[in-house]
Amino acid sequence: MLISMASGTMAQQALNSHVNVTSPEVTDSTVTFRLFAPEAKNVALLSEMDKAPLAMTRDSDGVWSTTVAFPRHDLFIYNFLLDGVRIADPSNPYTVRDISSTFSYFITPDTWYDTRDVPHGTVSHPWYDSPALGMNRRMTVYTPAAYHKYPDRRFPVLYLLHGMGGDETAWTDLGRVAQILDNMIEAGAINPMIVVMPNGNSTQAAAPGQTGEGNYVTTGSRSVSPKDSFEKSFPDIVRFVDSNYGTVADADHRAVAGLSMGGGHTWRIQQLYPEMASYFGMFSAAVGWKGDPERLTRKEDMLPARPAPKLYWISIGKDDFLYKLNEDFRKTLDDNHVHYAYLESDGGHTWNNWRSYLTTFLMNIFLPD
Amino acid sequence: MLISMASGTMAQQALNSHVNVTSPEVTDSTVTFRLFAPEAKNVALLSEMDKAPLAMTRDSDGVWSTTVAFPRHDLFIYNFLLDGVRIADPSNPYTVRDISSTFSYFITPDTWYDTRDVPHGTVSHPWYDSPALGMNRRMTVYTPAAYHKYPDRRFPVLYLLHGMGGDETAWTDLGRVAQILDNMIEAGAINPMIVVMPNGNSTQAAAPGQTGEGNYVTTGSRSVSPKDSFEKSFPDIVRFVDSNYGTVADADHRAVAGLSMGGGHTWRIQQLYPEMASYFGMFSAAVGWKGDPERLTRKEDMLPARPAPKLYWISIGKDDFLYKLNEDFRKTLDDNHVHYAYLESDGGHTWNNWRSYLTTFLMNIFLPD
Repeated sequence: MLISMASGTMAQQALNSHVNVTSPEVTDSTVTFRLFAPEAKNVALLSEMDKAPLAMTRDSDGVWSTTVAFPRHDLFIYNFLLDGVRIADPSNPYTVRDISSTFSYFITPDTWYDTRDVPHGTVSHPWYDSPALGMNRRMTVYTPAAYHKYPDRRFPVLYLLHGMGGDETAWTDLGRVAQILDNMIEAGAINPMIVVMPNGNSTQAAAPGQTGEGNYVTTGSRSVSPKDSFEKSFPDIVRFVDSNYGTVADADHRAVAGLSMGGGHTWRIQQLYPEMASYFGMFSAAVGWKGDPERLTRKEDMLPARPAPKLYWISIGKDDFLYKLNEDFRKTLDDNHVHYAYLESDGGHTWNNWRSYLTTFLMNIFLPD
Repeated sequence: MLISMASGTMAQQALNSHVNVTSPEVTDSTVTFRLFAPEAKNVALLSEMDKAPLAMTRDSDGVWSTTVAFPRHDLFIYNFLLDGVRIADPSNPYTVRDISSTFSYFITPDTWYDTRDVPHGTVSHPWYDSPALGMNRRMTVYTPAAYHKYPDRRFPVLYLLHGMGGDETAWTDLGRVAQILDNMIEAGAINPMIVVMPNGNSTQAAAPGQTGEGNYVTTGSRSVSPKDSFEKSFPDIVRFVDSNYGTVADADHRAVAGLSMGGGHTWRIQQLYPEMASYFGMFSAAVGWKGDPERLTRKEDMLPARPAPKLYWISIGKDDFLYKLNEDFRKTLDDNHVHYAYLESDGGHTWNNWRSYLTTFLMNIFLPD
């Protein structure tokens, strides 16, 4: 009887006829996309795998499709171009928001990014008081499975910062933090840790839709924070975390890392609070960022503060538009005999790189002396 | 400099040109939908506001639009039909998954469902051990702001169950539980409480994408649980919650409610464990559900067990396909002089009704004698 409950136009916790093709269909080396659109004039695939849209072909039933050999094992986002309109794949319920756009995604085999049957950590969204910003603000916290299994055990904390246009949901959504940590911990590749992902936009309390501003459409520009404003609220975040979670509350059990703007935040937090953490990771980082796209810090002000971090980590892709900035930064570090770790990858300013950098960075923090 | 970072085809934490019209645009009484689709032959709106698709009209710039006076203050889901393909609104980053379909949504003024600048509770996704089902399983937990502000205070718990095809994310996503609780608590309409939303599909550990099965496309049929299987795991859930949260661990501080299949679960949990909770709410409920669409319990087995609940609540819409079932159930209750509360609404088997039932039910539980 209940089987018939979806007869209306909109399904309500019931079966529905929306899914009429399988898309995407992922094998060990290829992915096939399909869209049932008998009336369409033109359908193309727009994905991270190719720079240009890829034409899809129509069969006699009105199903448009294309099969692509994926270039590497990864998570890929994509859209269809349906008669010129960019849409999410209607057959794929797995979507992710990047700033104000909704993308479909799929995960190939052999990554750290898929969900496996391993002990799972818990993701939560607590609100904390930030006297420095005069706001109650939202953060995302990942606590590992061992945290809940052994209530007396204390854990190190990675503070992980997003980029411009992002918010406190970016690292768990596009960044796959919960899956990466669950899988790497279970595999013995890293030790369990807490990951704290605050909102790095000092003018916002929380992600779009999570504040009294309502469901507004965000843009990158509104997330530019005045100079040092977010960075100077960092101690508020650490205080909240140490007061409410089972942490080891010292520098050797704290790491800070971030991508793009968040890499700039990481660079600056090290300068302002060098005694608060021992590990710093800058991924495709806007180092020298002064809260104004036109203003970068003078070379002589770029150096890390003392005490020197145990790890001062820089990673960037060869095609990243911030490559030159990071090259200049490294030259300044070299000229001043500052020790740092450096990982250069292919590709540009992409989540593919940031997820990958994270997995390597995680293996290089909280190590015994 | 950073402003130029979105030159690629896929935005990465950056500005992007995807949003070229404002849609939806909500006023006090109307909502306007727009889609930029100059090459499209036909665009229509499919929404909860109308049964039939509503044609949209094209202007000379290629923007299709329509303005609708919304029939009531509510959250509404919608899709566009773009040359016959049902799509989410590309200009609206706010989407919600119902089983395997992705819908866009908007919220009118004057509901309990929007996010306001009030003290916020915390939503988390812990995993718990269920010996009855032999699984580690995922649940969603809402803890109110006062829970975090006053660590020594203890709270009552509402166990809130989803319907067929749903999972542990349904009540926080389509059900807007966090916003409803935050807003009603701040307004003084209800007292603070914890809300626990388990996964009611006894054959699953967690929502699609949250287990080792990967990102599969779910259907309603796979979520049919064998008779009494989920219900008999209910004590595992209560044990986990009382062990890990600051609860008042007695019947008068526990309520159970659910929609559709979850209403059937509620009905059955009352029969199996009448001493575990004092308040029971059945929303559009599949009462008498025996884990098989064809089999309903005999009339004489429908009655609630003793001790009698403090509240035995039934709500259903006049157009619900389960109306007759609930009418028969109420007749059985009446014939046996069983006291119950009854709320009959307009409409059918919809989230509009379930959100509304929840707001009323919340005002009728955990009251002083």
